[in-house]
Amino acid sequence: MDYKVVEVKENLLIENSEKANQLRDKLTKKGVFFINVMASPGSGKTTLLVNLINRLKNEYSIGVMEADIDGDVDADRIHRLTGVPSIQVHTSGACHLTAQMVEDAISSFDIKDINLLILENVGNLVCPAEFDTGAHLNLVLLSIPEGDDKPLKYPLMFEVANIVAITKMDTLPAFNFDIDKCRNNIHLRNKDIEVYPISALKDQGVDELYNALLKFIKK
Amino acid sequence: MDYKVVEVKENLLIENSEKANQLRDKLTKKGVFFINVMASPGSGKTTLLVNLINRLKNEYSIGVMEADIDGDVDADRIHRLTGVPSIQVHTSGACHLTAQMVEDAISSFDIKDINLLILENVGNLVCPAEFDTGAHLNLVLLSIPEGDDKPLKYPLMFEVANIVAITKMDTLPAFNFDIDKCRNNIHLRNKDIEVYPISALKDQGVDELYNALLKFIKK
Repeated sequence: MDYKVVEVKENLLIENSEKANQLRDKLTKKGVFFINVMASPGSGKTTLLVNLINRLKNEYSIGVMEADIDGDVDADRIHRLTGVPSIQVHTSGACHLTAQMVEDAISSFDIKDINLLILENVGNLVCPAEFDTGAHLNLVLLSIPEGDDKPLKYPLMFEVANIVAITKMDTLPAFNFDIDKCRNNIHLRNKDIEVYPISALKDQGVDELYNALLKFIKK
Repeated sequence: MDYKVVEVKENLLIENSEKANQLRDKLTKKGVFFINVMASPGSGKTTLLVNLINRLKNEYSIGVMEADIDGDVDADRIHRLTGVPSIQVHTSGACHLTAQMVEDAISSFDIKDINLLILENVGNLVCPAEFDTGAHLNLVLLSIPEGDDKPLKYPLMFEVANIVAITKMDTLPAFNFDIDKCRNNIHLRNKDIEVYPISALKDQGVDELYNALLKFIKK
């Protein structure tokens, strides 16, 4: 029973990678940079995005895709707090987005007017890591309340990350979280990952993260 | 591409439900009660389980299954802090356990000696909700740092729950979390769910949760 699924899934992952590479090339040619944001539920993705978009929107023309199983609270919140166009993508129960789903979602924008696409993926540390979305950069969030051991338990998510933001730093006193240990656990997965401890709520460390993103976008 | 997966998945879910019903019946006949614990990564599942198991072990002979993509920190921690037999189940990358995987895992125990099985499922609010494990009771945790809107975004997880523990109540002052709103959001999904706000670390509210579990087990 499980074997059948594994086989179908492997074929699907190969097809998805090809589609993702095509989409990435297409966007690159059009001068569009695409950031995929991944994390657990409730790790502070939307709060950080509001903060970052309000900085980035002065330099870039942004389109935001908010992926969720259900609901549309995030797309509405992003649009209300930043003014940038934001669409809600429902995954019909799926725990991830495929590159094809992303391409379909992008077609809702007038892509000629956009040069920075941001996807807030489904809140999940497992499935979204397996499906390349076609993004140029994977930004992964890990919040203080989740614990410093998560890179050991969800290895693939940290292997595919380019930048990890350790979020909700303002809550550090309330939790038993060792930043150095966490950094080591992250670098066990991928030693090139840049790690930025931040508090989007208190606007601490976001400057450094913003500058790191700009460097990636302009590379 | 997506369609093929949806079809395979639907067949798989039907097969899994049948297997889960068989497993549940088999355990019931043997006098074994089976609790499935589900939540996001870092919501405090292991900390709560250590606390609960140290109460339950006086009345029951317990076996614990710790499911993770990778690592064995949880099984080791549970055994070290409670003394009960605890096995680590790796899902080979999958975001959930099937009833078959659970049955295979149970065979590692000497089931004659056990009358309470506890499964700590993969940290994930999406996939584990779709796959009936054969459990008699689904205990779902939602931690204060995750936010009170999660039942709106991950509806199925809260539909299949029998009991929801709102965890890390000691961190409430650090977060913008409305307990009444959360309770309403949970009851929108399933009005029969019992909700218990707790702090396993400070041992607050755990008595009430423990008594609720006993009532379910003895029903």
